[in-house]
Amino acid sequence: MSTNNLQLDANGKLLHFLSIEGLNQQILIDILDTAESFTSVTDRTIKKVPILRGKTVANLFFEASTRTRSTFELAAQRLSADILSLDVKTSATVKGESLLDTIHNLQAMQIDMFVIRHPDSGSAHFFAQHVHPGVSVLNAGDGQHEHPTQAMLDMYTIRHYKKDFSQLRVAIVGDIMHSRVARSQIHALNLLNTAEVRVIAPSTLLPVDTESLGVHLYDNLEQGLQGVDVVIMLRLQKERMRGALLPSEKEYFKLYGLTQERLSRASPDAIVMHPGPANRGVEIESSVMDGKQSVILQQVSFGISVRMAVMSMIVGQSGLQAKA
Amino acid sequence: MSTNNLQLDANGKLLHFLSIEGLNQQILIDILDTAESFTSVTDRTIKKVPILRGKTVANLFFEASTRTRSTFELAAQRLSADILSLDVKTSATVKGESLLDTIHNLQAMQIDMFVIRHPDSGSAHFFAQHVHPGVSVLNAGDGQHEHPTQAMLDMYTIRHYKKDFSQLRVAIVGDIMHSRVARSQIHALNLLNTAEVRVIAPSTLLPVDTESLGVHLYDNLEQGLQGVDVVIMLRLQKERMRGALLPSEKEYFKLYGLTQERLSRASPDAIVMHPGPANRGVEIESSVMDGKQSVILQQVSFGISVRMAVMSMIVGQSGLQAKA
Amino acid sequence: MSTNNLQLDANGKLLHFLSIEGLNQQILIDILDTAESFTSVTDRTIKKVPILRGKTVANLFFEASTRTRSTFELAAQRLSADILSLDVKTSATVKGESLLDTIHNLQAMQIDMFVIRHPDSGSAHFFAQHVHPGVSVLNAGDGQHEHPTQAMLDMYTIRHYKKDFSQLRVAIVGDIMHSRVARSQIHALNLLNTAEVRVIAPSTLLPVDTESLGVHLYDNLEQGLQGVDVVIMLRLQKERMRGALLPSEKEYFKLYGLTQERLSRASPDAIVMHPGPANRGVEIESSVMDGKQSVILQQVSFGISVRMAVMSMIVGQSGLQAKA
Repeated sequence: MSTNNLQLDANGKLLHFLSIEGLNQQILIDILDTAESFTSVTDRTIKKVPILRGKTVANLFFEASTRTRSTFELAAQRLSADILSLDVKTSATVKGESLLDTIHNLQAMQIDMFVIRHPDSGSAHFFAQHVHPGVSVLNAGDGQHEHPTQAMLDMYTIRHYKKDFSQLRVAIVGDIMHSRVARSQIHALNLLNTAEVRVIAPSTLLPVDTESLGVHLYDNLEQGLQGVDVVIMLRLQKERMRGALLPSEKEYFKLYGLTQERLSRASPDAIVMHPGPANRGVEIESSVMDGKQSVILQQVSFGISVRMAVMSMIVGQSGLQAKA
Repeated sequence: MSTNNLQLDANGKLLHFLSIEGLNQQILIDILDTAESFTSVTDRTIKKVPILRGKTVANLFFEASTRTRSTFELAAQRLSADILSLDVKTSATVKGESLLDTIHNLQAMQIDMFVIRHPDSGSAHFFAQHVHPGVSVLNAGDGQHEHPTQAMLDMYTIRHYKKDFSQLRVAIVGDIMHSRVARSQIHALNLLNTAEVRVIAPSTLLPVDTESLGVHLYDNLEQGLQGVDVVIMLRLQKERMRGALLPSEKEYFKLYGLTQERLSRASPDAIVMHPGPANRGVEIESSVMDGKQSVILQQVSFGISVRMAVMSMIVGQSGLQAKA
Repeated sequence: MSTNNLQLDANGKLLHFLSIEGLNQQILIDILDTAESFTSVTDRTIKKVPILRGKTVANLFFEASTRTRSTFELAAQRLSADILSLDVKTSATVKGESLLDTIHNLQAMQIDMFVIRHPDSGSAHFFAQHVHPGVSVLNAGDGQHEHPTQAMLDMYTIRHYKKDFSQLRVAIVGDIMHSRVARSQIHALNLLNTAEVRVIAPSTLLPVDTESLGVHLYDNLEQGLQGVDVVIMLRLQKERMRGALLPSEKEYFKLYGLTQERLSRASPDAIVMHPGPANRGVEIESSVMDGKQSVILQQVSFGISVRMAVMSMIVGQSGLQAKA
């Protein structure tokens, strides 16, 4: 079964949300439009709509997370869902149960929606292949594969500040090779017809297949930033330092850290994004992170609306309808 | 105070749910009937009833659990209760407070219902003896003593598939001696007038007092399975291996593992049950666990309805009334 | 910006709840009166009011806690808030994010109210200085500085049993020097015009500046208890034993443990309080803790009402209005 078939039904309706790869432009735009309708929900005094009332969302985080886990939980709460949070490290697998048995058992509890983060690439698809019809899986990050809701909140942020993707030059900077975030972003930017997508990284961290994705590669930050409208910094996974792939943090900052001076090569109204948590002084200078071009905290806020949008589209109700 | 008095009031109404021992047939049948009314609740789109609205249920798990803890939590959510989950290992007792002080303090927080799992046999009764009138205790497993809601979901499953207990031969297979699940099941099967209850285990794991419970003992699996209608496999606690009570896992499977071949000795329409989490290839062959006679995942689903039933009977409302 | 300005707006309305120091008598009395209106809420069958419906309360506990964390959570639930519980030790700071970045990120999630416990004195003020207008911070204990909701539940308990502070002699016994609870209590007792506040401790644990707070110092327990109406025992932090500040537990009990015999020096109707968790046989004899003068468990109950009161006053609705 192809990814496409797994995520969309015969009428193009969203069944799961596993990867940007395999989706189409219309679905992405629907998500952004629906998210926009929820932004007003999060701003008004009472932040709840009953779209998921009586539904149960289970959070299955096999890797630590604050930002993603919390915003998924808040999105579910604001849609009035019941939430089951499973501390996976200390329970299910303690007794040696396999992932598949865990899926089957949770499904037997009539969970309507699973939010899963797992260190193995493909685990969200694996989950989706094994749940019953009517049960949905949302990928909150699977290994080095994809992190599709992160990409969608990034697209929301870009559209919010820059409107028309077809006029934009977007640069993604950092450890592209190991980044599920970058992979999802590139697919989304392409689906939305972004004029130019650049990827900037040390040559050791440039994946072999990236060029086939239609992006332009740079291993020099100054050159890559020239005239871009959007700069997306990736988090440097410090674990990579131990391998031979990267120099020291200090060395990395010297070559690939985003400073005010370097940012001046970009368009004067360029926005700076980061999925968080950022390493200040490693991939980004503090003054840039807190500067007026940074929209990093807005990304977090939009993340709730985007996750509400995906959840509500899966259960078959858009935010627009819910408000009527 | 006898167990019976602790669990039932003068009119036979359920106050706590601590052990099957000390209950009567009518209460068991009421629980099964009430649970049946909740099965439709869990199937319909909006899965909530307001029976526990404004009540607080506290989950106190002194031992790790996914299945039991999650289904208790879902049951409470679907009855609209507020839930306080206490991570006992990392909080209360860290500062050296005694169990009794923990009870008293939680009770001072106006908790209405405690769900407790604890490694000490008798701990749930101890809790129930020390809470105020109007506060209830539900035993989610106490040491090697009882696990009464597990037994009731097993009875629900048996009745669902087999209807009339008085015609049934039921075999329980495994480490009977250390199993709170087996102890609760035997009491329940007896109260429901099961025609024949068989217990199958290595002779080192057959408790001395089992025969007084009115069951038939077998130390040979093939003989014990002959003609039974229900096969209940117990989880093998691998910790027992270290002691001299059991041979290796491989040896155990050779003698007591449920295979397709052995299952063929049972009645052709026999059902296979397991409280989970199962050790595939130790006490049960994978093909049996996933086979058409297995109702193991249905047990999990029924577990939510049964726990909703017990909780709602304790607060004085049956599911049937709630639906009217 | 002074503490006073941070906690109160120009009209004296509560914006944050960080420390008793800097508040005024009227606010304290308003909190006690509002809490009284919520005591009936916790007693009636359905324990919920919709004051915080659609608001999100985030619990940020950087130190372990059962009592304080649970009662804050129950208070928020009974006001109908959504709750986000962050297990801080295993998430946010794992990836090396600074406290300030954590604040900014959580705030971007449209949290309305933060409940924070942190080992650093001043951390709650730090938080409050960095959140947006309309977002509130409640101090659940910051280092050795203050624990203001604990002090308010203590004041509630004293008023409940003793009515008029201006006639009372109150003794606080234990490790005053390191106690955030004592510091908050002394400020509150002074603001409420308590006739006499005594502080009883080994001379090594009497802080130098305590006398400036207008309290009377005793290093002899028998003398200090003479004729008092309220005895507040502090928890002995056993960690102090390792330093040279304190003798052994046994020695401590001999000199400063509250026994029935010593309690007889106090007024015959004196009440005994303790913030919990108590070390039986160290700072307090079991028979006193469980005796008829002890109101230790009532303190826990009142803690929920007091926390509901503070939360509802911050969002601008008193319990009295809510009930109308």
